[in-house]
Amino acid sequence: MTPPAAIEVKAITDTAGVTVPDPLAAPIKSNEIYGRRRKTEKSQWGVAAPANSFNFRHYSYEDKPKAKRWDHRITPEALNRKGNSLKEAAKYLGKSGLISLGGGLPSSEYFPFDSLSLKVPSVGHFTEPETQTSGVILTAGKHDLVQDKSIFDIATAFNYGQGTGSAQLLRWIVEHTEMVHRPQYQDWKCTMSIGSTSALDMAFRMLTRPGDVILSEEYTFSAAVETARPMGVRVAGVSVDEEGLLPSSLNDILSTWDEKIRGARKPFLLYTVPTGQNPTGATQSLERRKAIYALAQKHDLIIIEDEPYYFLQMQPYTGPNTPDVPPPASHAEFLQSLVPSYLSFDTDGRVMRLDSFSKVLAPGSRIGWVTASEQLVSCYQKHADVSTQGPSGISQLVVWKLLDEHWGHEGYLDWLIHIRMAYTQRRDIILAACEKYLPKSIVSWKPPMAGMFHWLKIEYKKHPQASSKTIEELEEQIFLKVIDHGAMIMRGSWFYASHEEEHDALFFRATYAAAPGEKIEEAIRRVGEALRGEFGLEQ
Amino acid sequence: MTPPAAIEVKAITDTAGVTVPDPLAAPIKSNEIYGRRRKTEKSQWGVAAPANSFNFRHYSYEDKPKAKRWDHRITPEALNRKGNSLKEAAKYLGKSGLISLGGGLPSSEYFPFDSLSLKVPSVGHFTEPETQTSGVILTAGKHDLVQDKSIFDIATAFNYGQGTGSAQLLRWIVEHTEMVHRPQYQDWKCTMSIGSTSALDMAFRMLTRPGDVILSEEYTFSAAVETARPMGVRVAGVSVDEEGLLPSSLNDILSTWDEKIRGARKPFLLYTVPTGQNPTGATQSLERRKAIYALAQKHDLIIIEDEPYYFLQMQPYTGPNTPDVPPPASHAEFLQSLVPSYLSFDTDGRVMRLDSFSKVLAPGSRIGWVTASEQLVSCYQKHADVSTQGPSGISQLVVWKLLDEHWGHEGYLDWLIHIRMAYTQRRDIILAACEKYLPKSIVSWKPPMAGMFHWLKIEYKKHPQASSKTIEELEEQIFLKVIDHGAMIMRGSWFYASHEEEHDALFFRATYAAAPGEKIEEAIRRVGEALRGEFGLEQ
Repeated sequence: MTPPAAIEVKAITDTAGVTVPDPLAAPIKSNEIYGRRRKTEKSQWGVAAPANSFNFRHYSYEDKPKAKRWDHRITPEALNRKGNSLKEAAKYLGKSGLISLGGGLPSSEYFPFDSLSLKVPSVGHFTEPETQTSGVILTAGKHDLVQDKSIFDIATAFNYGQGTGSAQLLRWIVEHTEMVHRPQYQDWKCTMSIGSTSALDMAFRMLTRPGDVILSEEYTFSAAVETARPMGVRVAGVSVDEEGLLPSSLNDILSTWDEKIRGARKPFLLYTVPTGQNPTGATQSLERRKAIYALAQKHDLIIIEDEPYYFLQMQPYTGPNTPDVPPPASHAEFLQSLVPSYLSFDTDGRVMRLDSFSKVLAPGSRIGWVTASEQLVSCYQKHADVSTQGPSGISQLVVWKLLDEHWGHEGYLDWLIHIRMAYTQRRDIILAACEKYLPKSIVSWKPPMAGMFHWLKIEYKKHPQASSKTIEELEEQIFLKVIDHGAMIMRGSWFYASHEEEHDALFFRATYAAAPGEKIEEAIRRVGEALRGEFGLEQ
Repeated sequence: MTPPAAIEVKAITDTAGVTVPDPLAAPIKSNEIYGRRRKTEKSQWGVAAPANSFNFRHYSYEDKPKAKRWDHRITPEALNRKGNSLKEAAKYLGKSGLISLGGGLPSSEYFPFDSLSLKVPSVGHFTEPETQTSGVILTAGKHDLVQDKSIFDIATAFNYGQGTGSAQLLRWIVEHTEMVHRPQYQDWKCTMSIGSTSALDMAFRMLTRPGDVILSEEYTFSAAVETARPMGVRVAGVSVDEEGLLPSSLNDILSTWDEKIRGARKPFLLYTVPTGQNPTGATQSLERRKAIYALAQKHDLIIIEDEPYYFLQMQPYTGPNTPDVPPPASHAEFLQSLVPSYLSFDTDGRVMRLDSFSKVLAPGSRIGWVTASEQLVSCYQKHADVSTQGPSGISQLVVWKLLDEHWGHEGYLDWLIHIRMAYTQRRDIILAACEKYLPKSIVSWKPPMAGMFHWLKIEYKKHPQASSKTIEELEEQIFLKVIDHGAMIMRGSWFYASHEEEHDALFFRATYAAAPGEKIEEAIRRVGEALRGEFGLEQ
């Protein structure tokens, strides 16, 4: 068994803090960001130690504006949430020699786990089955922290933690966020979530009241609608084009909002998936994002930027039978190829960004994070402390061993490039199959630039029964016909932001994320067959 | 490296189902419960496969009553929660040869984890450092399921799951619940939670509305109060004695409830920690539980039975310098020594029981479970599906490898007996120290029978400043004096169910769970010193 990576890495953690001239250039060439981390007390890494993003940032943000306050938006529930009174006691724990019989934390003696090992791909050997032969073994012992073998171990990670998540992994997350987004206001913070689905549920409880209406793409992540509706919160759909949210539609809705007609106060919360949107696959360009942000300023909106697919941005699509675009030549080129996030130009602190490891490491990790102003993060954290708490400590240890102790920021960017290329290949397979098998007289699409989804528009008016059936009836009929032919794609109506609004188009969503390439091709062939049958076209 | 336990265990899983005459007697003598599991399709163990408790029960419950319906208690939020429309599609997945481009689940190719190994104690070798030398290594591979090496693996556990948690671990949990509690109504189910703190937050959203009052011990788990309060829900404290909740007090409150005076409808939700209550350490006897349950029937209450400390029931306390009671001679004797749960005699389905691995395996696992009627579990599950989802798949795999594949039910009971003896020893240390160092003229206590907490009553009226200071002022003064002397114990007022009610007693909570034995003794010595100083007694 290879020795734990902890031993190698330890030498470059916890060295004296250095002001970083340009952490973006440096750490992505090497992991030297580790050498620039602030020196911290070992107690920072202890059981349930509080973690504060501000301690982990490398840049200075003193010349930046402070975030706006959101007291007028935050719900009574969130405003009334006081910190845990027992945590009051924590301030005395620093007293030298103090013996605490205070916190009811179990002793690690009673955790029946002595070590945890992971076999993971080494950098540059990311493709199965190569991963299996050339992998590296990372091991966490039970008492690595007290034994100075690592700053994270079983005794710490498997015990209770804080709503923020552990300081160990939070540091890595803050550095990553700074490297990729470099926020533009003073008091931004990160706190871990247990995944963005939960983060959204908590965000709605923090920012909406029964009777409210929130805004989103007219076709949207169905769990968002299903989370909001039982809280008495409806979603109003904003029209979209191939770049997603249409600023004109957003402005229309807000400028003409009539509380009496709508039966709700003017919306102030925009939920959007800017990159590889689910289900439409649309990615907002930078110009589009800036136009939406300007409207958010005009109408004083808070934007929930839900970005599970941010790193599933793919290579440009070159069309069938043309050479592929070569992969990014450097980490800098890779990062520059990404559409800038709302977070990266948000000067008001009106963006609440949701990130997640689900699509880039493993959904089962149930680890994500929220980046927003100190006020919003603090509300989130206080709720987490009395509900979800932080993510599973077992998950945190696993992810931290890989990302911080083994790969580092550099290796992670390599991994993200690997994923980018893999999804590009999958996307190209589905597009080639669509070109080959789908009847273009009735199906059209735009090549997705990011994410997992391909959005097929069906010219339902050309259906033989178009005059006698509703869109949803035709949609169901086509759905079942496709099933009959041995394939499954999702019905567009399942993604309606609102069933109150009229829909004059029929869509299906296909994913290229899950099935192997040859199955994707075969499934699309079957879809083509089914559509021809339904529409009475020649096979 | 030892071969994965999966190989040994596989032979005894998935055999034909057998009606079990008495699963309580059988499985605890051996793991033969495994041989009695129902034969299941392999697809039951697949990625995000739905899991249903009913498939995993060994007894027949047909002769039992069905649970009451709670439509009149369940909130509009919970009643309005429909299932996820995308899950509609799942029913077609069984169709032979179907290729799904439906669900947006990432392919396991992109999980950078090839195997996960754990070193765990083998049965009977539970004490550190012996665990470290005689441990067993359990390994989960990436594709163990398709390779028929195990029924759970990285490809499955690290992907998305269901709100119930995985079928693999849920089966174990259902069997364990049946073995320990044997519920007395037909339609009981289990679903996993991400810990009981979250389960409580979700239970309150399912069962309370703003303005409601719920009932609990007058000193109660502070996070419960802090979870309820921001939702506009107050807690009314029920008086307690050394056996916890007083039926007479509960009946008084409910029988004399005046909506106008109280400004709230009559409470119908009782939150209680029956065993080793936090902070009082009280354990309700069976008679006490039955009396409370009878009142719950009389007043139509739902009981939230929060039982993190259920398996921290200890050996009888024999007093200083007397021989210890020998450990339980068999698993049956151990199980019989436990106070029966509310769940075990609930014939109406009015108990929602919260279990957790936090105190018996590791808090960082963030895995617990809810046992209740099908209706309540279904509401819970639907909320989980759009918020918390199931527990971390990484945690589930780790816990499942240990409990199902390695220890089995039998080994887990051995572990629980080990924990019981360890806590007994810790409890005896704090009691001996209290006998030795605390001034009995002003401090009194009852030996805790379960849990982590020792509750010290202070005769505050004997304090020199008793006439000029409030209880809370004296409490703070004593708290700070104890800190000055180098120890920390928690203030009783931090656990008030309600600050509106009058309190005529002063308490402190000390835990014997965390510090090593000699530190516990020294801390209590310091507490004694501080108290003598405060009360002007001779040192």
